Amino acid sequence: MEQEAAREDADSQPTYRIERPVYSEALIRSKLLSRKENSITLRERLANHFRCSSARARAAVLSFLPILTWLPSYPVRRFLFSDVVSGLSTGVVQLPQGLAYAMLAAVPPVYGLYSSFYPVLLYTFFGTSRHISVGTFAVMSLMIGGVAVREAPDDMFNVLPANASNMSATVDTEARDARRVQVAVMLTTLVGIIQILFGVLRFGFVTIYLTEPLVRGFTTAASLHVFVSQLKYLLGVKTQRFCGVLSIVYSLKAVLWNITSTNVATLILGLVGIVFLYLVKYVNERFKKKLPVPIPGEIIVVMVSTGVSYGLSLSDDYMVDVVGKIPTGLLPPAAPDFSLFPRLITDSFTVAIVGFSMDISLAKTFALKHGYSVDGNQELIALGLCNFISSFFQTFAISCSMSRTLVQESTGGKTQIAGLMASLVVLLVVVAIGFVFQPLPQTALAAIIMVNLLGMFKQFRDIPNLWRTSKIELAIWLVACAASVLLGLDYGLLVAVLFAMLTVIYRTQSPKSSVLGHVPGTGLYYDVDEYEEAAEYEGIKIFHSNSSIYFANSDLYVTSLKEKTGVNPEHIQAARKARKKQEAKANDNHSSPPQICVKYGKQEVTREVSSDNHVAVQHINGPVGDSCPDVDSEVVHLKTPNAVHSIVLDWTPVTFIDSVGAKAIKQVSKEYAAVGVRVVIAACSRSLLAELDTLQFFTGVMTPDVMFPTVHDAVLHCHHSGSCPVAVAAVAAPPPVEELS
Amino acid sequence: MEQEAAREDADSQPTYRIERPVYSEALIRSKLLSRKENSITLRERLANHFRCSSARARAAVLSFLPILTWLPSYPVRRFLFSDVVSGLSTGVVQLPQGLAYAMLAAVPPVYGLYSSFYPVLLYTFFGTSRHISVGTFAVMSLMIGGVAVREAPDDMFNVLPANASNMSATVDTEARDARRVQVAVMLTTLVGIIQILFGVLRFGFVTIYLTEPLVRGFTTAASLHVFVSQLKYLLGVKTQRFCGVLSIVYSLKAVLWNITSTNVATLILGLVGIVFLYLVKYVNERFKKKLPVPIPGEIIVVMVSTGVSYGLSLSDDYMVDVVGKIPTGLLPPAAPDFSLFPRLITDSFTVAIVGFSMDISLAKTFALKHGYSVDGNQELIALGLCNFISSFFQTFAISCSMSRTLVQESTGGKTQIAGLMASLVVLLVVVAIGFVFQPLPQTALAAIIMVNLLGMFKQFRDIPNLWRTSKIELAIWLVACAASVLLGLDYGLLVAVLFAMLTVIYRTQSPKSSVLGHVPGTGLYYDVDEYEEAAEYEGIKIFHSNSSIYFANSDLYVTSLKEKTGVNPEHIQAARKARKKQEAKANDNHSSPPQICVKYGKQEVTREVSSDNHVAVQHINGPVGDSCPDVDSEVVHLKTPNAVHSIVLDWTPVTFIDSVGAKAIKQVSKEYAAVGVRVVIAACSRSLLAELDTLQFFTGVMTPDVMFPTVHDAVLHCHHSGSCPVAVAAVAAPPPVEELS
Repeated sequence: MEQEAAREDADSQPTYRIERPVYSEALIRSKLLSRKENSITLRERLANHFRCSSARARAAVLSFLPILTWLPSYPVRRFLFSDVVSGLSTGVVQLPQGLAYAMLAAVPPVYGLYSSFYPVLLYTFFGTSRHISVGTFAVMSLMIGGVAVREAPDDMFNVLPANASNMSATVDTEARDARRVQVAVMLTTLVGIIQILFGVLRFGFVTIYLTEPLVRGFTTAASLHVFVSQLKYLLGVKTQRFCGVLSIVYSLKAVLWNITSTNVATLILGLVGIVFLYLVKYVNERFKKKLPVPIPGEIIVVMVSTGVSYGLSLSDDYMVDVVGKIPTGLLPPAAPDFSLFPRLITDSFTVAIVGFSMDISLAKTFALKHGYSVDGNQELIALGLCNFISSFFQTFAISCSMSRTLVQESTGGKTQIAGLMASLVVLLVVVAIGFVFQPLPQTALAAIIMVNLLGMFKQFRDIPNLWRTSKIELAIWLVACAASVLLGLDYGLLVAVLFAMLTVIYRTQSPKSSVLGHVPGTGLYYDVDEYEEAAEYEGIKIFHSNSSIYFANSDLYVTSLKEKTGVNPEHIQAARKARKKQEAKANDNHSSPPQICVKYGKQEVTREVSSDNHVAVQHINGPVGDSCPDVDSEVVHLKTPNAVHSIVLDWTPVTFIDSVGAKAIKQVSKEYAAVGVRVVIAACSRSLLAELDTLQFFTGVMTPDVMFPTVHDAVLHCHHSGSCPVAVAAVAAPPPVEELS
Repeated sequence: MEQEAAREDADSQPTYRIERPVYSEALIRSKLLSRKENSITLRERLANHFRCSSARARAAVLSFLPILTWLPSYPVRRFLFSDVVSGLSTGVVQLPQGLAYAMLAAVPPVYGLYSSFYPVLLYTFFGTSRHISVGTFAVMSLMIGGVAVREAPDDMFNVLPANASNMSATVDTEARDARRVQVAVMLTTLVGIIQILFGVLRFGFVTIYLTEPLVRGFTTAASLHVFVSQLKYLLGVKTQRFCGVLSIVYSLKAVLWNITSTNVATLILGLVGIVFLYLVKYVNERFKKKLPVPIPGEIIVVMVSTGVSYGLSLSDDYMVDVVGKIPTGLLPPAAPDFSLFPRLITDSFTVAIVGFSMDISLAKTFALKHGYSVDGNQELIALGLCNFISSFFQTFAISCSMSRTLVQESTGGKTQIAGLMASLVVLLVVVAIGFVFQPLPQTALAAIIMVNLLGMFKQFRDIPNLWRTSKIELAIWLVACAASVLLGLDYGLLVAVLFAMLTVIYRTQSPKSSVLGHVPGTGLYYDVDEYEEAAEYEGIKIFHSNSSIYFANSDLYVTSLKEKTGVNPEHIQAARKARKKQEAKANDNHSSPPQICVKYGKQEVTREVSSDNHVAVQHINGPVGDSCPDVDSEVVHLKTPNAVHSIVLDWTPVTFIDSVGAKAIKQVSKEYAAVGVRVVIAACSRSLLAELDTLQFFTGVMTPDVMFPTVHDAVLHCHHSGSCPVAVAAVAAPPPVEELS
């Protein structure tokens, strides 16, 4: 034996060899398996739990303030230079984006600068990712803007001119903007609280519902929203800002109806900006390797357009809309307006989740690339703290941005020291030279936002790809996109998540079912309709359905069991009754025969028995081959319509069962038992067996004896003790038992 | 060989014997399996489809009008007498229930009689069930009543008294009731249309979402609603009728606040009725066998209380509320008010589904008991036609009732001839003697409704039962009940269905994962933590997670793969880096060692490598036993932290995968490959393989060579070609290859 083993080891192909008695669940329970004592494990676990508590305390502190893990050993000479360069590069991108996204958030531009400073600074201390660049994020800014406009619409701030003439009311923009800032800030506080709570409660997993096609569909929709919202700035037309269901349509309509009032100077400036930024993007991409740092196109556009605007007095002479007042210096901390709580709480959930999912997906991507790991829950807490604390300094909610993160990483950012530097750049502008951006035309910011969207629009290419790979995921993409475009981002996201869940239900409740056959000599069972080699044993039907069995599909399971196997207990019963009645009729000639029963029976029978025969004939011609005498099958099977004596349910794919499913299986077993067909269950997993025990499945006719560990065990058992003594030719006859175990 | 086989057959225990080369997916694809040509099957299918079209046409007509199948052969002498007796018994139950449920539906009592006649008559022609008694149903009546009250509330019909004094406005009940009838009738028309459409579109399956715990929780809530709604009639207090969210609370509050105005005569009459009906119910149950027909308690209560009310002039002298005007004769058909369509369409979906699900569950129960089958879709069409056609004769929506069906069946009803008789009883009352019920006190009807609820309230006993068997189903029950009580029946049902779906998601996305070991000599792989016999092969980890892999759990899958197997590529990578750095440090003594990398590495490593060792040590002490020299494992494993060379993913329970899941698996395979651990996949089903092909899974490092048909194949392959050449002692050494197939 040892020699053989050695020879086998030297051989190139190992052998699969099992020889053992057929096991049933009863045998397995009584002899084969013994449950492990878990008491030791429990004690060990407790010991583990209380052992090293000081180290644990330290680990907890370190996980809460990740900066303590890396800053003390920060290799100044190796990292500092590249971190500073990267931080400066990121800062000059952070700055124009902050100004631009403030427009999306419907607050004055300076709040975008605040939002690009405080949270970025805080993230240095709490964040676990070393590479992402937190700060303003287009999609979130747009969502915040939607809420701000909803809560503080223009017509809430109409003021009648002092002389009460018939002039139309004008909007008190100062009061309006102040209110919008209040709304945005309170929303940010709530977002922060929600994110911290989710992090503490270990709810980081919620982002798993945001599957990739959903996120891509959603962000595509968001970029459409952003694009439409920026059109008016690009064209320089004055329209109301819309929010809520169908807002994108109203916005587009408003812009198109006012297109005649386009300000040509604005449009030209904007278009020049767009073309320039697009070229810079292209050059940066093309000469990535050769450029030491990417060309900071955005800051160039900001500076040049500010210069042009100031020099030509665009605001006064050409009526070009400019950024306007940018106060210098920071604001003292102030408590947000908590009275807005009930109006904002639902929105803040959406914003919090969108923000976190963007952050974590980017953080994970870069952690993977650089070989470290980020902790989703700590990341949630970090982001929450950034939003919560910063909101007291009048910021709006932030996350991280793909474009800035790429800049930060590609310019050599190694740690969040780069983020710190970027925030300092913004701080410098806020406290010292913010006012120089006052003549900056809004159209330049619109150009920056629009060019940043280009990458998003490339996501439309997902559609043909998904069409080829997965129709269900394409459906998720399309639903997420369409719902978010039409219903707005908040409801759209909700609808998309619900739809994505429904697809999971759909997958579990519309299983493919098949009848399996044995590939001779292998112990493998495959679909007989699909593979030529798969052959059925006579009298045994193996039914496979690739799903768990629960309320939403148990009926379907039973129906397709009866259909696929061609063995329907009702029809067999009816056929028997009909036969009995016919015999009775033939025997005595009373004048009032029990017609109705016969009728009921006959109709169902004549149809069904024949289809039954089809199946029966098919499988007689199959594996059994010549061993079966060529009798008239019609006759034979009308006499014995239940030639199938055993049905094996392959429960390989069944991972859970509920009481409805268990009842359905018991019921169908009973029905089959009544017509002399035995139902056995194969390949039921151990955890499912435990579940069945809890559901009190093994009562009455059901015993653990009907459970078999593999399909082959079940088939051998049924074949051996089957009522049909015909030998099966296609399968190698089993050799004598030789107890191995 | 033949002899051996014969000997084996005679033996009591068959043998499981497989001996074959180890298969991988590549081998299976190239040599073992060939796909069947499906062209013949398609032609056959087409032939089948067009073959017997005249018989098919006949079958279609018969399925649409099931009466044609059974009436021609109706065995008059055997069935007619018992059908007539049963019909009369059912009719006398139908009558008081019709009057009572009309109160629930917020329409005058005579409409309850109409609803107990037309649909019952029509069902005789279209229905497939022979035993159920269709007609008014408490839950549906209550839902209709809710809608009617919402659309025609009392205060819509306030009329100021002719002399405009300071008297409070009174309600024009006649106009109000007329409007409520309009609403109920239009709702019924819509319910009918929806049911017909669902039937024609083969949407009968929608009821599968109404799992049993959901339906029982929902009906329990409905009976609470009904109970509370009847309190005011029982007490004779006058309160408004509420509908919508929290209506049950408002109703209860209104009754309790007015409890001082209880009409004592009404209350006494009602309580006497309740006690009497309860006793009759008890007697009927107790002496079921001895009584030829059940005592018709309800009609007795109706007749006696009508008599008492008329004799003592309860209405005038004691201010007892009575049924009031019951017009004699039927109404001419009239078109419903279609202008209500937009206001009722959502409600009608709920009512249609509740009605159908009640009908089909009862029909199936009795069909099973009597051995025939009902067609869910034809049943939907039948119910829809009953509701639709009847609604033109001013009925409200009906389904079937448990209590009446039991009466009909237990008194010997064999076919719907019994239903026909019952409807004729009602017709007789409507056209001839309806007016005699005018003095019937409403409290008697409330008593009838309340006693009928007793069975429903027994469903509270489900709670302890479900607690023992399935917590998830208990949760469904409780949510269905609580939501339906608090939010009203329509929203409650919606919430309950959504919740039931979420439980399915929950089950698929929170899988149990485990590491499997081989039960020696069996080819069976079970959880090593649970069974003593399950032993791991050295260097091979078998990971099992009982769920499919898709967006909502792929992260979890990967995480628990790394945790459970104790092999984390990141930590191995980090450990390697750390070692390399340490070696470099030892070799040269420069003044600026690359500290941070070392630090990052060390911290993760020291913790993780030790846990790694724990696992490694555990399984060395496991199956490998004495064959492994007793070296200091700490030292050994710090040198070779990746003693595991292969990981087998057991995909037995995986029934579907999406692109996110496929990407996650590819990604984790790559990560493991980078640290020299091979990942192979076992027991992937054929349909899943096809799915993986579509998802372009087999590109790059992934080839069909990593797929194995069974776990044992995968393990043998890995063991054979494993990088670790230690012999495995616990497993019988494989014998020489002997090609069998």
